[in-house]
Amino acid sequence: MTADPTLAVESLHRGRELVSPALRGAVDRLDDHSRLVASYHLGWCDERGRPLEANPGKAVRPSLTLLACEAVAGDAAPALCGAVAVELVHNFSLIHDDLMDRDAERRHRPTVWAVWGEPTAVLVGDALLSLAHEVIDESGSGHARAASRALAVATRDLIRGQVLDMAFEQRDDVSLAECLDMAGGKTGALLGASAEIGAILAGAPPRVCAAYRRYGAELGLAFQLVDDLLGIWGWPERTGKPVFSDLRSRKKTLPVVWSLENGGRAGRELAAWLASAEDTAGDTAGVTPDGSAGEARLRCAAGLVERAGGRDWATEEARERVRRAGAALDAAGCDASHRQELDELASFVIERDL
Amino acid sequence: MTADPTLAVESLHRGRELVSPALRGAVDRLDDHSRLVASYHLGWCDERGRPLEANPGKAVRPSLTLLACEAVAGDAAPALCGAVAVELVHNFSLIHDDLMDRDAERRHRPTVWAVWGEPTAVLVGDALLSLAHEVIDESGSGHARAASRALAVATRDLIRGQVLDMAFEQRDDVSLAECLDMAGGKTGALLGASAEIGAILAGAPPRVCAAYRRYGAELGLAFQLVDDLLGIWGWPERTGKPVFSDLRSRKKTLPVVWSLENGGRAGRELAAWLASAEDTAGDTAGVTPDGSAGEARLRCAAGLVERAGGRDWATEEARERVRRAGAALDAAGCDASHRQELDELASFVIERDL
Repeated sequence: MTADPTLAVESLHRGRELVSPALRGAVDRLDDHSRLVASYHLGWCDERGRPLEANPGKAVRPSLTLLACEAVAGDAAPALCGAVAVELVHNFSLIHDDLMDRDAERRHRPTVWAVWGEPTAVLVGDALLSLAHEVIDESGSGHARAASRALAVATRDLIRGQVLDMAFEQRDDVSLAECLDMAGGKTGALLGASAEIGAILAGAPPRVCAAYRRYGAELGLAFQLVDDLLGIWGWPERTGKPVFSDLRSRKKTLPVVWSLENGGRAGRELAAWLASAEDTAGDTAGVTPDGSAGEARLRCAAGLVERAGGRDWATEEARERVRRAGAALDAAGCDASHRQELDELASFVIERDL
Repeated sequence: MTADPTLAVESLHRGRELVSPALRGAVDRLDDHSRLVASYHLGWCDERGRPLEANPGKAVRPSLTLLACEAVAGDAAPALCGAVAVELVHNFSLIHDDLMDRDAERRHRPTVWAVWGEPTAVLVGDALLSLAHEVIDESGSGHARAASRALAVATRDLIRGQVLDMAFEQRDDVSLAECLDMAGGKTGALLGASAEIGAILAGAPPRVCAAYRRYGAELGLAFQLVDDLLGIWGWPERTGKPVFSDLRSRKKTLPVVWSLENGGRAGRELAAWLASAEDTAGDTAGVTPDGSAGEARLRCAAGLVERAGGRDWATEEARERVRRAGAALDAAGCDASHRQELDELASFVIERDL
């Protein structure tokens, strides 16, 4: 794997530059309050509407849409409405997820519900989901209906993933297969649709569109595996998360669930640690001033995941998913130069912090 | 106004019969949990999934879609996907509204958030909104893109209405024009789109589609005026609301706001009553066993609205909106027999309980 981060960064930058004006144009149609809230969420302004030079999101999804369209048709322009739509659906899901999970911060800023309350978070999320279809439907593309349908199917799968995620929190016996299925919905579905919609709007035949969907979906699973690794061993200054954050909340991430199923003695010790009545999440209250006691216990749990083989498995599985994404590009008949750009994007996603 | 309720009831019954199987087919695609919750909300089963012979909704919106299509094309079938879609969007908005308003009951049953909690209400509402577009997009109709777009535009307006409604609760100076605009969004937009989408899927030209939208939107305002009258003077056994319910909660309904603007001395007394610090909503706690003290105060407020002329204005305004709806049908070139059916439906909506 020899990723050229420059190429991927350029692809993402170009995607953002292309999509930004159309995305702003779409958000401009919302009522005054929803427009302010959506603009805040997207990093364009502060909570009083004053413009910000903030760091916008990476725009991975719209970039995939544009790259897939360009790979098929030699031109990204026909997919612009689709790129805007997938970014709108992504942000609808972030606003509603933050509300449901009661996450008060995203990218070091208060989340929508934390600033404006629940009803606003519900309504603005709804508005972005509906706007995504409006943008595609008015594009004038002869493939708009198929693109809108692919987006709706992916949204249904995204919601299914979120429903499973919530149900799994109440269960102790979730299997790796179930977790992968859930991640396929939560993370894979929209990334899959992002690439698929690019191919659809380029006028590609169904077989090629399906191959691009597989590319995006595999990339989504790779992305989730990396996210789970970062949730245990990642760098707080880059991800905004403290190290061990997912262990602190006893989250059943993919490396943890793999370790429970396949990790032998270390896996059983990890299960005992997770089952222990003591609430590790509350440890920070009763520890030494530097927090070392709680940290030590979390470090020990992370060591169990590592000894069980969960860290190596997740790292290798992420690479395997990227290989499968590449195989899907082969099946799509993607030419060499576009193939390289899409490969680099995939590698960039998984190599960034590993 | 000589409504023939039999004809309207038949139209609604026929609409429900046509739409039900397709609506069930759409909901069947959802994940297990969302399907159960949506089926419960739609009155098809209890909260454990046991089938019910419950009273389903009136299906006004899908009936409008089917009738408009039939009026244009002589056949309701092309609009079936649109009828399902408007019913899905209507129910998405009910589930999210109940959550935002913390309404614990609807049609004498606990609401979705009250049974399953907030996250489920958020997700299942989202799922129904997205499903509405999926159903239209996969219909194979050559007019699917235009129908899906009209639905998205109406959803944006519906959300705008809800945003205004929430904002107005924080204000004392809301004008009648603002209230009518808000009701146009909350109630008029989707009813307008319901009729419009029927015409779109029938292949009608834009001028005719716009006329059907006006018909539905005027009907929506008439509906809201009637709802506001029932919220003050209605029959609890028919509406599920106690009499004076909107006065109890000091809601700024259309007859109240009209009275404040145009009601002279009675209007000023009503303003004083609304502004009085004492919380009438809490009166039931400290009253005589039969609740007569609180009731007497509410009856007095209702009398002020009546003396101010708000009751007469709202009744006449509802009839005027129905007349305008009829004028829109004239503009649409609707033939006599379909015209009668649509007229009866409009009259049924406003005459039912007045």
